[in-house]
Amino acid sequence: MDYKIYYWDLPFRGVFIQMLLEEVGSAYTKHDATEIYPARSLEISNPGMAAPYLYDCKLKKYFAQMPAIMMHLARKYDYLPKRPEPQTLALKTLLDCNDILLEITNFHGLAMWDKKSWETFRYSRLPDWMQIFEKTGLEHGLKDGKGFLLGSTISVADIAAAALFGTMVYTFPPLNADLEENAPAISALVKRVEARPAIRPFLEAQREEWGQGYCGGQIEASLRQVIRT
Amino acid sequence: MDYKIYYWDLPFRGVFIQMLLEEVGSAYTKHDATEIYPARSLEISNPGMAAPYLYDCKLKKYFAQMPAIMMHLARKYDYLPKRPEPQTLALKTLLDCNDILLEITNFHGLAMWDKKSWETFRYSRLPDWMQIFEKTGLEHGLKDGKGFLLGSTISVADIAAAALFGTMVYTFPPLNADLEENAPAISALVKRVEARPAIRPFLEAQREEWGQGYCGGQIEASLRQVIRT
Repeated sequence: MDYKIYYWDLPFRGVFIQMLLEEVGSAYTKHDATEIYPARSLEISNPGMAAPYLYDCKLKKYFAQMPAIMMHLARKYDYLPKRPEPQTLALKTLLDCNDILLEITNFHGLAMWDKKSWETFRYSRLPDWMQIFEKTGLEHGLKDGKGFLLGSTISVADIAAAALFGTMVYTFPPLNADLEENAPAISALVKRVEARPAIRPFLEAQREEWGQGYCGGQIEASLRQVIRT
Repeated sequence: MDYKIYYWDLPFRGVFIQMLLEEVGSAYTKHDATEIYPARSLEISNPGMAAPYLYDCKLKKYFAQMPAIMMHLARKYDYLPKRPEPQTLALKTLLDCNDILLEITNFHGLAMWDKKSWETFRYSRLPDWMQIFEKTGLEHGLKDGKGFLLGSTISVADIAAAALFGTMVYTFPPLNADLEENAPAISALVKRVEARPAIRPFLEAQREEWGQGYCGGQIEASLRQVIRT
């Protein structure tokens, strides 16, 4: 066994790590977040506030923070661009993903979405985020339906883009039109990543298990309420 | 000139980057965030949603996202641990800092603090964060008032810890007791980093200029209202 991942039985932040572990062919087991969070969060080696946690069986250490876990794995399995600019952009892409996850849940459900607040987000901030990905991809690696976000080879940034937008449009199908309109090259990239031989069977099995679950809780219910078309 | 940094005239996220640039002796100029944000955010190379932005004069490119900017500089100036575990922890520390900034502003001021919500945060979540830094430091590099967060040499994680907690207790002095109680080794580390020859004159000049400004806006006013003792 190479890794243990601790997360809820939902895709949200966990699917990023699982998709990368599947892509690189690591052996890992999935555990419920409650095995660590919250009782043991401060007691593990390298304590961290919240799930996901990755346990690296070789190092015998835990790591928290999704973008740090992704960079840890990306370095190890050579899923990071080599040059300084795209390497920094790989991390920046993970941080953008993390921000979008936070924003779409209205900051961990601090307030529930209503029609007005959701439409403000959906028609201004969300398209801006999508265009950030699109412009970055077209500037660096995507062209004529080929290439990857940051160059000619796949990197952690492509896995992240697919984990973010692929999950979003699968669980909230009306948002697919928003992605197609604001980021057509990213939409195509997401489909190509999701169709990769190591990823497709994983996503099929997981989506069977997760259903259309996204982030869970009242905030997901509030999202389902406002995203009807 | 090596870099341009675009941020508001407040420490909050900008002080992380400036402290690192001062520590490594880079030549940089500071510009107001409004030179990019929001009108040009999507138009610059490597578009990014919000300030801070770093312009790398050699690469002729912009980078957004504070932790990505810090890692970009840390790699270049050798402020990153070499081994996989502390290298991942350096990034994890930056992400923890970013989360704490978000939490202390109640998610960019989505709701104002009141006595009850602030005390809940101050007496449960904030001490947990402080203890996460303390335990990480004692596990890796801090011992008997010596060493650094992740080992025997300074890294980007030490600059980040000082930028976070040093600014916090300088601008909100009552929180110094919270830091001393929950993270005494970190409190001492912060003082040592702030006293470094390249950093002390910068902080003195900046604090003269910034006064006790922190994050600005109504949320800072709400913080000042609740942090009286």
